[in-house]
Parts: sequence; C-alpha cells; structure tokens
Amino acid sequence: MRDKDQGASKESRQSGRFKPVTIADMNHRSNLSLRAEATRPFYVMELLARAAAREPVYGPSISMVVGEPDFPPPAPVIRAAQQVLELGDIHYTHALGMPELRQAIAADYLRRDGLSVEMNRIAITSGASGALLLVMAAILNPGDEVLIPDPSYPCNREFVSAMGGVVRTIAVDASTDFQPTVAAVEQAWGPRTRALLVASPGNPTGTLLGPQQAQLLAGAVRRLGGLMIIDEIYQRLVFDGSPRSLLTLGEDIISVNSFSKTFSMTGWRLGWLVAPAEIVAAIERLSQNLYISPASLSQRAALAAFDPESLEIAETYRQRFKAQGSYLLAELQRLGFGLPAAPHGAFYGYCDVSGLTDDSYQFCLDLCDRAGVLMTPGRDFGDHQPKRYVRVSYTKPLTVLQEGIDRINRFLNKG
Amino acid sequence: MRDKDQGASKESRQSGRFKPVTIADMNHRSNLSLRAEATRPFYVMELLARAAAREPVYGPSISMVVGEPDFPPPAPVIRAAQQVLELGDIHYTHALGMPELRQAIAADYLRRDGLSVEMNRIAITSGASGALLLVMAAILNPGDEVLIPDPSYPCNREFVSAMGGVVRTIAVDASTDFQPTVAAVEQAWGPRTRALLVASPGNPTGTLLGPQQAQLLAGAVRRLGGLMIIDEIYQRLVFDGSPRSLLTLGEDIISVNSFSKTFSMTGWRLGWLVAPAEIVAAIERLSQNLYISPASLSQRAALAAFDPESLEIAETYRQRFKAQGSYLLAELQRLGFGLPAAPHGAFYGYCDVSGLTDDSYQFCLDLCDRAGVLMTPGRDFGDHQPKRYVRVSYTKPLTVLQEGIDRINRFLNKG
Repeated sequence: MRDKDQGASKESRQSGRFKPVTIADMNHRSNLSLRAEATRPFYVMELLARAAAREPVYGPSISMVVGEPDFPPPAPVIRAAQQVLELGDIHYTHALGMPELRQAIAADYLRRDGLSVEMNRIAITSGASGALLLVMAAILNPGDEVLIPDPSYPCNREFVSAMGGVVRTIAVDASTDFQPTVAAVEQAWGPRTRALLVASPGNPTGTLLGPQQAQLLAGAVRRLGGLMIIDEIYQRLVFDGSPRSLLTLGEDIISVNSFSKTFSMTGWRLGWLVAPAEIVAAIERLSQNLYISPASLSQRAALAAFDPESLEIAETYRQRFKAQGSYLLAELQRLGFGLPAAPHGAFYGYCDVSGLTDDSYQFCLDLCDRAGVLMTPGRDFGDHQPKRYVRVSYTKPLTVLQEGIDRINRFLNKG
Repeated sequence: MRDKDQGASKESRQSGRFKPVTIADMNHRSNLSLRAEATRPFYVMELLARAAAREPVYGPSISMVVGEPDFPPPAPVIRAAQQVLELGDIHYTHALGMPELRQAIAADYLRRDGLSVEMNRIAITSGASGALLLVMAAILNPGDEVLIPDPSYPCNREFVSAMGGVVRTIAVDASTDFQPTVAAVEQAWGPRTRALLVASPGNPTGTLLGPQQAQLLAGAVRRLGGLMIIDEIYQRLVFDGSPRSLLTLGEDIISVNSFSKTFSMTGWRLGWLVAPAEIVAAIERLSQNLYISPASLSQRAALAAFDPESLEIAETYRQRFKAQGSYLLAELQRLGFGLPAAPHGAFYGYCDVSGLTDDSYQFCLDLCDRAGVLMTPGRDFGDHQPKRYVRVSYTKPLTVLQEGIDRINRFLNKG
C-alpha cells in the first residue's frame, strides 16, 4: 500500500525514496517513525564500506564521490578563528547569527551582484542544511507539496518530508541541462503545492539554471502563488563568467547559500539564507527553538572569508576545480563515459554510463571492488533513469585523478 | 477554533504556546506555515529589547536570564582547537560524530557512572537541540503525542511539534519538585502517546528527578509501551553528591546530553545522545540527511574536555554555580521571593513572586525598566501558574549578583 508510484506520470510523481506518510501508515507501530524507516542510507555508503574492507589488502581507493573541497579554509579564516580562541568568548549568538556577519554578507551581495539585500532578509544558519530545514519549517504545513527535480541532491527531499511536506519530483534530463521547464512545473503544480526547489549549479550535474530560464520559472511560480527556493551553494564555483545570484530575480526569491563549498569550510557547519523579511522573522523564532544559534566560532571566523586575501584564495580553489574537472571529464569521455550535459560549475559531472553497463549501481560496485575507484551511483539522486548515470566528483588533486583514470582504464580493458 | 485548551483538564492538556495543527487549520493560506505562526518569540526577548533601549541612559542591566555559563571553555579544549586549526583539516565527519569522541563519551560513562555504553548507542549531535530534533524525527509520526511537564524548557515543545507531534503537558509544582508523578503520567497517557520527556536537573527549576522516582516513571512508561527521554544536560552540575546518569535505569532510556553547560561550550553547538541501538541507527540516516555531520572543529576540541585538567576546571565551574546560587537565592528569599523547591543543580532557581506581584511578567517588565535587573517570566516555560513564578539564573559572578540584589532591594522598597 505504501508504493504510490505506480500509475503516476513520469513528469510528476511522488518520490520512491521518501514516501509520504498516509493515515493508514500511521496506525503502524514500532519504535521508529515511518519517516525514520523510510529514510535509507545513501547507496554510496555501501561503496565506502566496501572500500574500507578492501583497503588492508589493496590499499586506499581513489575517491570520486566526495561532496566537499579537499582544501584547507583560507588562511585569514584560520587566523580569525585563532584570535577568537585566544579570547575564549564562544557563547550563543543571536538566533539569526551575528549582525556583523549578516552585514558582511549583505556587503558581498552589493559588491558582487550589485544587489541590495536588507539585513532583515538574511539569516545565518547551521550550514545550508540548517537553512533548508528552517525554510521548510517556516513555509510547509503537513501535506503541502514541494516540487524538486529528479535527479537532485537527495537530502532536499528529507527536509521537506521531515516537516510533513510531500515531495513531488519533476523528471529532468540533459535536454534541459537537468533543470525543470515551465511546462513541467505547471503540469506538476497542484492545489497543495507551495514551492519549487531548484539548484544552480545543480548537484549531481553541475549545470546552471540560466538567467532567462530562471526568470521564466520564477514568473510561473509567482503566477501559481508559490515560492521559488534556489540552492546557490555552488554559485561561487561557476567555471566561466561570474553569473549573478538569482536573488536578482526578485525579493520573493528564497536563496540558500553556504561557506562550505566556496571557502572549503564544510566542517564548520555554516550557511545562510536570503528570504522575504516575513519568512526570516518566522525563521528567527523557529531557529531560537530548534538551533538556539549557529556555531559562534564558525561565525566569527567566517567574517574573514570576505577579506580580499580569502576571496583570492577561494578564486584559486575555483580554478583548481575547473582544471580538475576539465581533465577528468575529458579522460572519462575518452574511456566511453557519456557527458550529455557538461557542468558549468561545482565539482561534479553526471556521466552517462549506458555505453558501459546497463546498471550503474552494479558498475559502481564492480569499479570499487575490482579497480578501487569510487563513483556515486545515479540512484542516490532519484528515480529518473538512475541506472544510466554515475556522479563523479573532482575535488581531489590531478595526480589522484590521473591514478583513478589509469585504474578505470585497466578495469574497462580487463572487463 | 485553534484554542483547544478550553475544557481540557489541568493535568493533561495541549500546550497553548504550540498548538497542534488540525485539518481545518490546514486549509489556511499564507506565506507562513501554521507552525511558524504559532511559534512565538520568547517573552524574555521583550525584556532584552527593553534593556538594550534603556542602556544608553541607565547603563547595562544585571542579567539573571542567561541560559549559559559565563566562563571560557577549559584551557585544554582551547589548546586542542588551536592544534586543529594549525592542521586545517576541518571537514565533514561521520554523521554520528567522530568515533574517537563517541569512545571518549563511552569511557566517561564507565568512569563516572560505572555504566557500560556501547558505541552503537551513542550519537554526537549539533547541541542537545540537534539531539532532541533527531530523537523526535526518529520516533514520532504525525499526531503522536509526547508528555512534557509544565513548566519546562520551552524549546522541547517545538522539537515535538516540528516533527508533527502533539505536546501534552503535565502540570507540575513544588510538591513533587516540579517533576511528574506516575499517576499523572498514567492519566495523561493516551493511545497516541509515544514518550515522556523529562529533565534532571530541570529547567527552569534546577530540581532533580530522584533515582527512586525515576525508576517508577521508567517502569510506568515501559508498561505503557512508550519511551522515556531524559534531558541530562545539567547532570554534571548537581551541587551535592554525584548522582549517576539515569541511563542506569535501563538500555531503553534515551538520554540527551551536551558539552554546553558542563564545559561552558555553548557556542560550539555540540551535544550527544544515548539511545537504543535501533534508534541510533535511524538517527544516523536522519542525521546524514538533516545535518550531514556535527561541527568537526568542535568535535575535535571536545575530545580534550575529558582530560583530567578539563574535568578539574569544570568542577570549579560547578562549585561557582553552587556558591552563586547559594548567595542569590538566600538574598532573594530575604527580599520576599519564595523558593518552594530549592534547586539541586544547574544554575537556575524558580522563584514564587506571588508575595510581590500578581503578574510575574509585569513584574519582570517593571524590574527591567525601573531597576535594570532581568529575570525570565514564568510564562516562557508553560501555562501552569506562570504568573506566580520567575526564573533567576546565577551564571554571573558574585559581584554582579550583589549589585543585582542591591537594585532589587531599592526597587522593592521604592515601589
């Protein structure tokens, strides 16, 4: 009874990975909630376990599954953190974060995007994860729907379902750079739909939502009476040009961002969001209750992320991702991997392996077991053509990626 | 229609502050969820705003509202953090936290409580806040109820309602040290009740759940087929004796804990929980999605919190809270404040001000505006006799508390 996918259209269906809770389900009894039971480990965890098991005999695997930069944070961030430690004042901050940091973010939007963002539209959060959870808490009633492209970042679905929302996926493919079309959004939109959640650049694809397409989507969502939420955590890691934040589309846009990827600050758990002031006011109350405040050492250190020296270092990181991606994706294509939509940013490529296998998950298992190379199977990102794709990540240095290519080459030519 | 309190018994009723969502409510439309609209700012925020407004003229207020220690973290924690910064490796960790830290926590339970806790029962979290959110996510289906004493820590209610749960409060008073009785729990328990959430020492009262009473409650909850969740974040700050963790009651107990209060590490946002392995396994999956991992710099630094030097420093903090509380509460009683249940730990006292006012909130406003002293009104902790009580916090040094007493004395004798 819990398999509601049957008969649903391909364009608009409920996610198989995160099933909505029905009244019938609620009569079920165990120590665990249905939400907890429905939340599976990521498939890549199985690969990591296998890699750990084979390591004593075969040595370390080459990881192309990593979702975080391999670099240290910029030196000014480290120095700022050291100064905070010397003072020892590491207490709770305002629930929306330190005013100085919100100001610094506003200044950066002005400098970089020519965009004036009032302080009362900015909330500092415990990573982009905290931002997404708070946004969903602020806007979703039980049963409200959020449209999410398939494939996309898997946790997005869990933020929705944790808050009682229902995920409706929009199948996307390379023909639209893995971004949804207005027609698909309009078709999937129902009376209980509250929001469209997209990412630019996207994960697992690294593809952008172009400004024209973004404007069309924002207009459609506005007409439908909903909210457009844009995950821009990779927005500073676009390879060519310097696209402006999609906050330029209007003051009704909700943008989620983070220090994690841009400044290699993943373990600091610090992000932010920009939203209409009314929603940020609600998020302040929710954050007081659910988080108290974001980590304060991270906040004080992050103030230094906007120093010219930090921005220069972050720029070298961006160049490195571009060069590493350039190398890896060209080599993989030489070996028979398809790349139907080349990434515009982030550090991912979504490769079509249908020329090499009819099951990308089995391919990933074999590649791990027999070659010691790790890729993330498409099924971690959704239900739309997952067997056709793998996500490769190129956060590791060129020498490591070269060794990976050598191993894949040997694996393919042996197999 | 949203006021469901009418006609509900005093012993067992739904919370006024966090109303459960009904189907009728769900037809309501605004940019905000009902959850967001129902979540009010804490009343103490109004006091903080007034204190800030009067400061330019009258100088800083004396704060007796603070919910965090005023001390720096132990020196070994700072040194450990500095070493981590020098290495610069501050990436994501395992979703349940660093194995070394989980091991250190297990070792500490063994040392201190004579309790063997397997690693697979321990999860590191983003503060006790993260622990409580994850526990509720793991065990609650929409409409499931959690019993919570009234008065208690207000955010507890929000963790329940965020996950679609319904809070049922159990009115408690000084006659039972503000802890629930078995009879009250049994009376409040219904077919959808999943858990009892208590705190020992409690907030706002600082009173303990004694081992006998705890055992009776755990037995009752077990018979009723539910879970007992115990907030033990103040457990290391008990003034006399060294009570063992209530995890000693059985392996089915869920205990939430934190580095925040014991080690003065609030801004580091680091806590943990101990729960049955099945629940921790679910929390691992939920945490991967909702948090990715707890802050890693905080985790590495917290490893040093169990050093003998850190434990000695934390012990001096405990002694300071005890001395400060001793002084403040005796002086307040001399001035007409009642203390029907003396705290056994933490850094709070829940004072009966019915001899001084018939509205504790107005009393707090006046005390702020006219004397520059801040106390938290009872209404921040629930709906049971809130006008009768204020919470005082004694985290500030004796000299500050003395100044506060002088001001209160002048205020009362002028009024």
